[in-house]
Amino acid sequence: MARLTSKRSRKTGLPPGSLVHIGEQKTETVAITVRHYDEQQFQEKSAATFEECIPYKDGPGTTWINVDGIHQVETLEKLGSCFGLHPLVLEDILNTEQRPKMEDYDSYIYIVLNILQYAESKGEVVNDQISLILAKNTLISLQEKETDIFIPIIQRIKNGKGRVRTRGADYLAYTLLDAIIDHYFVLIEKIGEKITSLEEELLQNPAPQTVKRIHHLRREMIFLRKSVWPLREVISGLERGESALIQDTTLFYLRDVYDHTIQVMDTIETFRDMLSGMLDIYLSSVSNRLNAVMKVLTIIATIFMPLTFIAGIYGMNFKYMPELEWPWGYPLILLTMLAIAVFMLAFFRRKKWL
Amino acid sequence: MARLTSKRSRKTGLPPGSLVHIGEQKTETVAITVRHYDEQQFQEKSAATFEECIPYKDGPGTTWINVDGIHQVETLEKLGSCFGLHPLVLEDILNTEQRPKMEDYDSYIYIVLNILQYAESKGEVVNDQISLILAKNTLISLQEKETDIFIPIIQRIKNGKGRVRTRGADYLAYTLLDAIIDHYFVLIEKIGEKITSLEEELLQNPAPQTVKRIHHLRREMIFLRKSVWPLREVISGLERGESALIQDTTLFYLRDVYDHTIQVMDTIETFRDMLSGMLDIYLSSVSNRLNAVMKVLTIIATIFMPLTFIAGIYGMNFKYMPELEWPWGYPLILLTMLAIAVFMLAFFRRKKWL
Amino acid sequence: MARLTSKRSRKTGLPPGSLVHIGEQKTETVAITVRHYDEQQFQEKSAATFEECIPYKDGPGTTWINVDGIHQVETLEKLGSCFGLHPLVLEDILNTEQRPKMEDYDSYIYIVLNILQYAESKGEVVNDQISLILAKNTLISLQEKETDIFIPIIQRIKNGKGRVRTRGADYLAYTLLDAIIDHYFVLIEKIGEKITSLEEELLQNPAPQTVKRIHHLRREMIFLRKSVWPLREVISGLERGESALIQDTTLFYLRDVYDHTIQVMDTIETFRDMLSGMLDIYLSSVSNRLNAVMKVLTIIATIFMPLTFIAGIYGMNFKYMPELEWPWGYPLILLTMLAIAVFMLAFFRRKKWL
Amino acid sequence: MARLTSKRSRKTGLPPGSLVHIGEQKTETVAITVRHYDEQQFQEKSAATFEECIPYKDGPGTTWINVDGIHQVETLEKLGSCFGLHPLVLEDILNTEQRPKMEDYDSYIYIVLNILQYAESKGEVVNDQISLILAKNTLISLQEKETDIFIPIIQRIKNGKGRVRTRGADYLAYTLLDAIIDHYFVLIEKIGEKITSLEEELLQNPAPQTVKRIHHLRREMIFLRKSVWPLREVISGLERGESALIQDTTLFYLRDVYDHTIQVMDTIETFRDMLSGMLDIYLSSVSNRLNAVMKVLTIIATIFMPLTFIAGIYGMNFKYMPELEWPWGYPLILLTMLAIAVFMLAFFRRKKWL
Amino acid sequence: MARLTSKRSRKTGLPPGSLVHIGEQKTETVAITVRHYDEQQFQEKSAATFEECIPYKDGPGTTWINVDGIHQVETLEKLGSCFGLHPLVLEDILNTEQRPKMEDYDSYIYIVLNILQYAESKGEVVNDQISLILAKNTLISLQEKETDIFIPIIQRIKNGKGRVRTRGADYLAYTLLDAIIDHYFVLIEKIGEKITSLEEELLQNPAPQTVKRIHHLRREMIFLRKSVWPLREVISGLERGESALIQDTTLFYLRDVYDHTIQVMDTIETFRDMLSGMLDIYLSSVSNRLNAVMKVLTIIATIFMPLTFIAGIYGMNFKYMPELEWPWGYPLILLTMLAIAVFMLAFFRRKKWL
Repeated sequence: MARLTSKRSRKTGLPPGSLVHIGEQKTETVAITVRHYDEQQFQEKSAATFEECIPYKDGPGTTWINVDGIHQVETLEKLGSCFGLHPLVLEDILNTEQRPKMEDYDSYIYIVLNILQYAESKGEVVNDQISLILAKNTLISLQEKETDIFIPIIQRIKNGKGRVRTRGADYLAYTLLDAIIDHYFVLIEKIGEKITSLEEELLQNPAPQTVKRIHHLRREMIFLRKSVWPLREVISGLERGESALIQDTTLFYLRDVYDHTIQVMDTIETFRDMLSGMLDIYLSSVSNRLNAVMKVLTIIATIFMPLTFIAGIYGMNFKYMPELEWPWGYPLILLTMLAIAVFMLAFFRRKKWL
Repeated sequence: MARLTSKRSRKTGLPPGSLVHIGEQKTETVAITVRHYDEQQFQEKSAATFEECIPYKDGPGTTWINVDGIHQVETLEKLGSCFGLHPLVLEDILNTEQRPKMEDYDSYIYIVLNILQYAESKGEVVNDQISLILAKNTLISLQEKETDIFIPIIQRIKNGKGRVRTRGADYLAYTLLDAIIDHYFVLIEKIGEKITSLEEELLQNPAPQTVKRIHHLRREMIFLRKSVWPLREVISGLERGESALIQDTTLFYLRDVYDHTIQVMDTIETFRDMLSGMLDIYLSSVSNRLNAVMKVLTIIATIFMPLTFIAGIYGMNFKYMPELEWPWGYPLILLTMLAIAVFMLAFFRRKKWL
Repeated sequence: MARLTSKRSRKTGLPPGSLVHIGEQKTETVAITVRHYDEQQFQEKSAATFEECIPYKDGPGTTWINVDGIHQVETLEKLGSCFGLHPLVLEDILNTEQRPKMEDYDSYIYIVLNILQYAESKGEVVNDQISLILAKNTLISLQEKETDIFIPIIQRIKNGKGRVRTRGADYLAYTLLDAIIDHYFVLIEKIGEKITSLEEELLQNPAPQTVKRIHHLRREMIFLRKSVWPLREVISGLERGESALIQDTTLFYLRDVYDHTIQVMDTIETFRDMLSGMLDIYLSSVSNRLNAVMKVLTIIATIFMPLTFIAGIYGMNFKYMPELEWPWGYPLILLTMLAIAVFMLAFFRRKKWL
Repeated sequence: MARLTSKRSRKTGLPPGSLVHIGEQKTETVAITVRHYDEQQFQEKSAATFEECIPYKDGPGTTWINVDGIHQVETLEKLGSCFGLHPLVLEDILNTEQRPKMEDYDSYIYIVLNILQYAESKGEVVNDQISLILAKNTLISLQEKETDIFIPIIQRIKNGKGRVRTRGADYLAYTLLDAIIDHYFVLIEKIGEKITSLEEELLQNPAPQTVKRIHHLRREMIFLRKSVWPLREVISGLERGESALIQDTTLFYLRDVYDHTIQVMDTIETFRDMLSGMLDIYLSSVSNRLNAVMKVLTIIATIFMPLTFIAGIYGMNFKYMPELEWPWGYPLILLTMLAIAVFMLAFFRRKKWL
Repeated sequence: MARLTSKRSRKTGLPPGSLVHIGEQKTETVAITVRHYDEQQFQEKSAATFEECIPYKDGPGTTWINVDGIHQVETLEKLGSCFGLHPLVLEDILNTEQRPKMEDYDSYIYIVLNILQYAESKGEVVNDQISLILAKNTLISLQEKETDIFIPIIQRIKNGKGRVRTRGADYLAYTLLDAIIDHYFVLIEKIGEKITSLEEELLQNPAPQTVKRIHHLRREMIFLRKSVWPLREVISGLERGESALIQDTTLFYLRDVYDHTIQVMDTIETFRDMLSGMLDIYLSSVSNRLNAVMKVLTIIATIFMPLTFIAGIYGMNFKYMPELEWPWGYPLILLTMLAIAVFMLAFFRRKKWL
């Protein structure tokens, strides 16, 4: 999540619709998996090229074509020609720094969004882009690298459990969106735990390190927000029900996903609010500690400076200093000093510094 | 109110519409109470299963089915099949971390919101979720645990007082919403008192503890806000009068509830404004006190450093120091010191430090 | 203006439409005054009950019924039955903690807003609620206690001056609204003067007291804003001209009141901006003074510490310290000290600390 | 620009539409100038009363009536009766504290806005209100005092240059608006220069004076904003082309004025952003200087306190202090002191304080 | 990017539509290049005057007229008369301080926007204004000086590569817009790198210089924002498809440019967020360092002040000070001092200051 800007500059000067992969290549090979199912049966096979997928296109049942690895320009070009995609869609699939968006090309809907997961090993949020192309009977999903968040869905389709087998490609698309946004909640919980522990640290023992951790979390919230805010528009665009590709029965489900998105957004805003509140607390605790330090210094100085001065007076070498000759001079002066110290301490106690 | 994030992650990987209870289980048993009434008569009985409630469904009069305890998945499934509810509604009822919302399923309206109460014992706001299903003649309310805020309503129905006996299920739903939002005012008053006492503390005797209490209240406001803001949409959705389930005469009453919601929101925003103003005051009072501490230190140092230096000079052991031999040397030097001290004090008085 | 929250909790548990007076009782008795006029004649009399007012209701001419004191529930119930008001309207009249609002009940319009005045004696803004019920030919105004801001209007009606005698009840309602909002300007001017004097104090001689006064004014702005913002909606609701009760010729006048409301809102926002700017100035002046204090301390310490150290050296009692024997040792060391002091002062002058 | 609030309170209690001049009287006399022109000819004369202007009203050609000085209520009353103006328009003309607005009275359009100019002598922005009444063939402009910003326009009309002679009163109104808003750019440039010089001062040599100058500019921006923001609505109201008084060919020109208004608003917002950024810089520079001061103090104290202590030890008068007798005691102790000082300096250098 | 305000004041007093060049003259000569092409052929030639371009105007194929240098008023006047442009368009072309905008004049569309590039040599963003006039078959582009960002487009047209040769002038306009906004990404990347390196500097070794660099970047973001925000409106105005000059097939491409604009805006907002977060970090690091400095001072003072005081006591010259005579007095007092120092250090360690 540390990248501030994409490496889009690589594309400058190329004609629009040029296919150039932008982003890090996350997998070696490109794997195409075709899953074809209807209420009765289920098939799953690996395909070497997109041409193998064409037969399923208009046939009965639902076809889910999943592509892991999107860095091969030629493969994408094949996809485009097989399924009649607009060159700009292909360009967007290759550019892994897209803002989530939904585009309705009448015969298909193009959706791009991010799979966000917390990478325990790196201690930061990891972002993979997924493109969905929803056509009649067919859903094509393209990801930067294989992901494990769809495994339960694949299991359910295989076992014939759930509604997914009896519904079309639009319900499948919903199921994938639902799984992706469910993982946002996992991420949000992780960050919530971090914020809670940071808050405790802050209230008990704030250190300069704390402010850096607050900064780090705020920075992550900025990026999360950038991924989630446009999502609202994406889902609400689907849920508005203007496309013939989405059946009415699926709209209720999309409304549910929409609610979840709003909830994620709400929580992100809440976290931002809390983090900026925590920074205020930190700054006030730093000020308080400075105050405490300065009080110690002032108390010490205020007590010992007058005493040292008195000692300095009777350390002078004047010939005629009658006090020096008095037998009780020394104890008297010690008592005076004690009185001054006691008075000073009483003064500070009254000022509530002690 | 301390929970930052729900435990939704428990649901990740499950098919949409899976019934899983999310949240803390707040009661042991599930209690179903059926209240059936019209202008003439009133019945109240406990039901063991939802099947017992079916006879009342289409009959004349109004039926209020109240469920305390929503953690039993099987009970909910029964409810769904008896009353023909959408699986997503059942899922939402079970998930006690919902954002308040209103969904119109034509034959029924689903409303979910929070009962907020101030728990004196814990010193914090306690949040219980309530789901309302408003169908023709029937209102179903589902809560995490028994609540006492509906007791006056039940009394009024029993005694045949008020309009509630003569109107339908929509008026009953309004009465419950009104009672819930009336309790928000109680909560708001509690918090208002806390803010007032905090403000007094702040202006008279600000302590590092004060800032933590401000932070605590700000945090509670963040959560309150999250509960109340979506409510505006919920009530305005009902009040728009698009559903055939809500009679025109009830719309005036809903407009009243809407006004109350706006008033709660207004007050929450006012409190947020005040709390952030209080933090500013706190920070400026810390700065002022630092200034005061530093002035004491500076005054002491500025008076005693020169005096100690003079005493130091006449403490030197040079052989030829003519002043030491003067008979008036000692008193003269004491007078000089006094003059310096007086001059310094005058200087500070002119600078308004004293 | 110190009340943070209403005592609405008193109503919790009561049925909707219950008549309970909320707020402070500001007058002993309830006084009903009926004024009836048309272009030719004018009558004014006190009424003991609302029944006396009924004859005027549909007759020709305009009737203005003014009620001072709204704490008697029975009186209000009478009013409701005489003029056929909705129970929620009566409830709202009794609740003196209303948010300004306008409700169109077809046969009458209900308006509630605040009369804001500056109480010189208490040094704060005083808030009285006024309810207006505009029916055909009749305007009913209900206030917590007698107010003097309508006296000029009554005089004009009596003397037959101005347009008010020739127009209907809607113009009368406009005249009252205009008078109320004109008094907002008086209030705004008072606060403007306070802010100006505070600003001068801030730039010339900021004291810890200043920040408390800024806080006090900010707090008053928060409450003023709460009273004025909803007013915009109220007036714009009237001015939209959707009610048959308001004649087209009155709409121009309402647009004028609307402009005034916007102007009050603008000024309130300007004041808020200025007050938060003033807090910034205050904080930077505190920092500057801290800097000044620290410079004094540092200059004193930097000059006298080295000098005291040198004096300390020649105060040591070593047997073999050749300098002590030199005849010019003492004057030489004094010169050295002087040189160090001069050098230090030059150093501080170059650093612009002096 | 120092006035915070208008003296509107003077009007409190008067009937609506009362003609009272609010504001400072800026000129002694009231001067009415009538300019009548069409493509062929041009006339200019002073008029003593508005009656003289009536003949031009419906005749062919365009008439521009300019009034300098608006404090005479009787003159305004004449204007109203001659041209059939609504009493509220007359009231608004007299009140020189108006918010810019545009009101369409079908037979004429009333526009009020501010002429803002930078008064070099006073060092602040000067604000004069101008009212424009655009009727068929006639434009009436009323100002508080004579202004020089219309001189080039008058010259162009006289000389028959530019489009203005061939177009109607609406184009003339546009020309005046354009001239007024062009002067906003002059003002904006002046303020821009001030901000630039202030920024340089801030980065090179920030002084407590700087923050007061920032505050002064921020305050001016608040007032400028109050004048310019409503202007957008005014011009967009004209440009929407709903009035028959404005010809289609003029709409393109009004769109241009609209663009300029947006540009002024943009720049004001940019200035506000910059000024608040500059305050942050100032505060951080104050903190940095405090840090620098404290480092000097700490370095001095840390070096001389231990040394003075050592000197103090050997200044004690104990009988049995063997070191005092050593021949090398004195030079040894001096070397030790030097070593401590060098060590301390090295320590501070490593801490990057030097 | 340092100019705060344009030199528009130069135009004050001139009639609307006056042609005056505003801004810096960036090139000596004015160069007109005409490129005419269709699917079969391509011509490119320099034109001395605009009259030479007229033959291409209505002929088949697409004509692109590029003008480098816009400071010659006469050339512009020629352009206006040849192509029938509105005087305000010519005025806008000459004024190089325009806000990006799009104006539809039915027979042509006028677009003005900025080419933003990072000038490595100056270390700041450089801004050149470009005007596009899209008529049927013809596109006219006018720039302040020659730019290199269109070279790849010209190459593609020459070589007959890409879609551009087969489509009309609207696609050509899109291609130019696309190239311009692609360069915004290059700029954004540059700034992103600067922010990243600044952030590292901030977390590792914050210096007063850092805050000035943050300020500099914030200032650049303010100006970038001013260039980019209005662009959204421009592109969305084109993409809405209301003009007959833009073919439906081009709309998909414009939507793509629109997405890119949103992405640039998003990134700018993200950068602003990050920069203000960085300032907070800086301020808290300054406070922390002040705290550290003060702790060193307090520790030193707290240890050495009591010790120096004790040394001072035994430096007094009283006749009767029994301790001075004790043989173990000196070592005992040294031990006492050591104990005090150790105790103080333990105290500070417990307070976590060491």
